[in-house]
Amino acid sequence: MNALRRRLSTLVSLTTFQLLRRTSKRSQQRLFVGGFMLASSGFATLITYANAAATPDDASKVKRKLNVNRFMAEPITDANVLLEDPDNMRHRMELLIMEIQAEFCRSLETEEMNGQKFIVDRWHRKEGGGGITCVLQDGDVFEKAGVNISVVTGWLPPQAVQQMRARGKNLTEGTKLPFFASGVSAVIHPRNPNVPTIHFNYRYFEVETPDGQKQWWFGGGTDLTPYYLDEKDAFHFHKTLKDACDEHDATYYPKFKKWCDEYFRIKHRNESRGIGGIFFDDIDSPNQDACFNFISSCARAVIPSYLPIVQKHKNDDYGNNERQWQLLRRGRYVEFNLIYDRGTKFGLYTPGARYESILMSLPLHARWEYMHEPKEKTRESELLKVLKNPKDWV
Amino acid sequence: MNALRRRLSTLVSLTTFQLLRRTSKRSQQRLFVGGFMLASSGFATLITYANAAATPDDASKVKRKLNVNRFMAEPITDANVLLEDPDNMRHRMELLIMEIQAEFCRSLETEEMNGQKFIVDRWHRKEGGGGITCVLQDGDVFEKAGVNISVVTGWLPPQAVQQMRARGKNLTEGTKLPFFASGVSAVIHPRNPNVPTIHFNYRYFEVETPDGQKQWWFGGGTDLTPYYLDEKDAFHFHKTLKDACDEHDATYYPKFKKWCDEYFRIKHRNESRGIGGIFFDDIDSPNQDACFNFISSCARAVIPSYLPIVQKHKNDDYGNNERQWQLLRRGRYVEFNLIYDRGTKFGLYTPGARYESILMSLPLHARWEYMHEPKEKTRESELLKVLKNPKDWV
Repeated sequence: MNALRRRLSTLVSLTTFQLLRRTSKRSQQRLFVGGFMLASSGFATLITYANAAATPDDASKVKRKLNVNRFMAEPITDANVLLEDPDNMRHRMELLIMEIQAEFCRSLETEEMNGQKFIVDRWHRKEGGGGITCVLQDGDVFEKAGVNISVVTGWLPPQAVQQMRARGKNLTEGTKLPFFASGVSAVIHPRNPNVPTIHFNYRYFEVETPDGQKQWWFGGGTDLTPYYLDEKDAFHFHKTLKDACDEHDATYYPKFKKWCDEYFRIKHRNESRGIGGIFFDDIDSPNQDACFNFISSCARAVIPSYLPIVQKHKNDDYGNNERQWQLLRRGRYVEFNLIYDRGTKFGLYTPGARYESILMSLPLHARWEYMHEPKEKTRESELLKVLKNPKDWV
Repeated sequence: MNALRRRLSTLVSLTTFQLLRRTSKRSQQRLFVGGFMLASSGFATLITYANAAATPDDASKVKRKLNVNRFMAEPITDANVLLEDPDNMRHRMELLIMEIQAEFCRSLETEEMNGQKFIVDRWHRKEGGGGITCVLQDGDVFEKAGVNISVVTGWLPPQAVQQMRARGKNLTEGTKLPFFASGVSAVIHPRNPNVPTIHFNYRYFEVETPDGQKQWWFGGGTDLTPYYLDEKDAFHFHKTLKDACDEHDATYYPKFKKWCDEYFRIKHRNESRGIGGIFFDDIDSPNQDACFNFISSCARAVIPSYLPIVQKHKNDDYGNNERQWQLLRRGRYVEFNLIYDRGTKFGLYTPGARYESILMSLPLHARWEYMHEPKEKTRESELLKVLKNPKDWV
C-alpha cells in the first residue's frame, strides 16, 4: 500500500535525523520493520504495530497504535482517528506538526543549563479545534522560547477573505467560508546576544467555496534574526535551508529566499528584521503529496540549521552594551510582528483566537530609544548594513 | 477686530493658567494691555506690540511680532506669515500647538530632579511641512517623554481615504486628495510605577475634494494609563477634563468619555489600555471657531489634569514587583499602539513619515510574559478589573 509506505517513509526521515543527532551521545538500538529502519531508543516510536506485517501488501491488516507519549501532549484530533485514513492530509499534517514540535522542544531543552523544561498548554477553541502551546521562559539559554501547534476549523473572517483575494485566491467576497488550518510555529529568543533569534512556521490551509469545492495550500518559512553577525553562521543557516529546498526543486531556494527578504521587511524603517531564510505561501503544485514532502523537509531542517549556532555561541561573553543592543533589536522584532506580520494579524482578528499563543512570539524584554543609531564601524553598524541591504549567503 | 480679540483671549486663558501654576513659586509682574491681562514674567509673551493700541478698534494698525523664544523651536511656518491673517485656521492651530508643546515640556522639566531637559528636533518633510519633536529620555522622573507637533501637507494615501470613508467622510475613493494636518501629540512614560502614563493629541485636518471644496475637522483626546489605581487621581483627572468640556457643551464629556473607553480597547485581550479620559474625532460643528475653542480648552486642561498626579506620586516607594508589573503593562501599551492606534497606522503608512516621531510613543522598556495573571486581591488585579470593565469616575 502506497499510503503505508508513505507513512513509514515519513518515520524513516524522522528517525534518521534523530539517529544522526543522538548517535554521539548514546548507543542506539535499531529495529528493522519490513525493510524500514526505526529507532526505538531515546524516544518511543511514533506508531507501534500489533502484528507486524511481513510485506507492505499486508499493511492493511496491521493494527496500528499511535504512541502519543512522544508528543508534548495528546494530539488535538483523537489519536485513533488520526491513523484511520493515511491519505487524509489534515491528519498527516497534524502528525507532522506534533512531531516537529516535540523534536524541537526537546532539542532546546537539552541546551538548557539547569534542566529548564517547556511548560505545555493544550487548549481548545470553542469555534472548533485547538492547539498545544509550549513555552520555556526565563531559561539560562533561552530567555523566551515558544513552540506552538494549532489545528483549527471555523469561518474565515471577512478581513481574511479580503487578504486572500488580494493574494489572488479565487474566493467570493462577503460570504462566510468554512476553513481548516493547521500549523506549527515557533519563535526562540535566546538570552545571549551572540545567539540569534529563530522563527519558523509551517502550515496547511483549506477553504471550502460556496459551490462545495475545496481549495488547499501550504505555506511556511524559517528565518534568522542575529543581533551580531557571524558570516559562517549565516552561511550554515542558509545552506541548510537551501539543501532542504534543493531536494525538491532547484528553483525553490532562490525564489523563497527573495520572498523572505521581502516579507520580513520593517517598511517604515526600510530595514529587514533579520538575515532572512526562506518564506513562501500558496504552495499547491505539482500535487499535494509533493507539497507535503517539501514542507516536511523544510520543517526537519530547522534543528540542523539552528542548534549548531546555539551550541557555538551560548557561552560567549557579552556585556551590558551587547544586551542593550539586543533589546533594541527586539523592539524592532515587536514592530514587525505587530504591524506587518500577516500571521499575527490573521490570528488576532480571528474570533476566539488564543492571543497568548499568538503573542508568545514577543520577547520577554524589548527597548525603544528615540533616534538610536549605532556608531560607525562597530559590530552593531555592520549588522545594520546587512539589514538595510539583504545579501546572498550561499 | 474680532480676530485680535480672539487672539488676546487665547493669550489670557494661557497666562491665567501660568499664573495659577507659578504663583506659589515667585512673585508675578503683571502687564495689562487694552483691558486684558498678560503675564510678562517667567515666559516672554507670545506676541509683542510695537505700538500698543488703546482700544480693540485700533488693533488693525498694530504691528505685531511673534516671540518665538517662547516655543521649543522656530515654528514650521514662517513666524511673520503666521500672524498675517488671524482668521487663518491653519495658522491659529500652529500657534496653539506650539504653545501647548512648550508649556507642557517646560512643566515636565520642572519636575525632573537633576535638571534633565528635552532634546529638540525640528524636522522637515520633503513632501511638505515638518514638525518639532521633543524627547526627554532616561530622566529621574520621566523614563521617556515625547511631545511632538507637526504641520504637514501632502496627498492622502488610498488607505487613509478608505479609513476616512469608513468613518462617513464624503471622499472619492481611488483619487489622490491633497490634505493638510497639524497637531500636537504626547506620550509620557514616568519611571515610578505609581505615576500613570498620559497621552494626549489635538489635531486639525483639511482635505480638498476634486471639486475644489475643502472639508475640515478637529479631533483629539487625553487619556491616562495608571499602573496602580488611585481613585482620587482618577476622579481628579476625569473631573478636570469634564470641566474643560462642560465649558463648551454639557453633552461632550459623557459622549467623549465613552468614545475614549471604546477607542483605547485592546480588543484581543478584551481590556482597556488605561482608565480613559476623552476622545473624539470629526468635530466640525457648530462652527470652526467654536471647535477650535473647544480643543484649545481640552489641550490647556492637560497640565492641570496630570501634573498634580506626578507631583503627588513621583517620590512614592516601589520595588521590583511594581517595576515588573509596570513593564508588562507597557507591553500592552505597545500592543495597542502598534495594532490598533489609528494615528500610528496613519502615520506609518504616510509616505515620508518621520517614524521616529511616531514611535516616540513607545516606552523605553516593555515586557511580555506568557499567560501572566496577577494574583487575586492584589493592587494589580484591582487595576485589571477596572481595565476589563471601564467605570465612570465623575
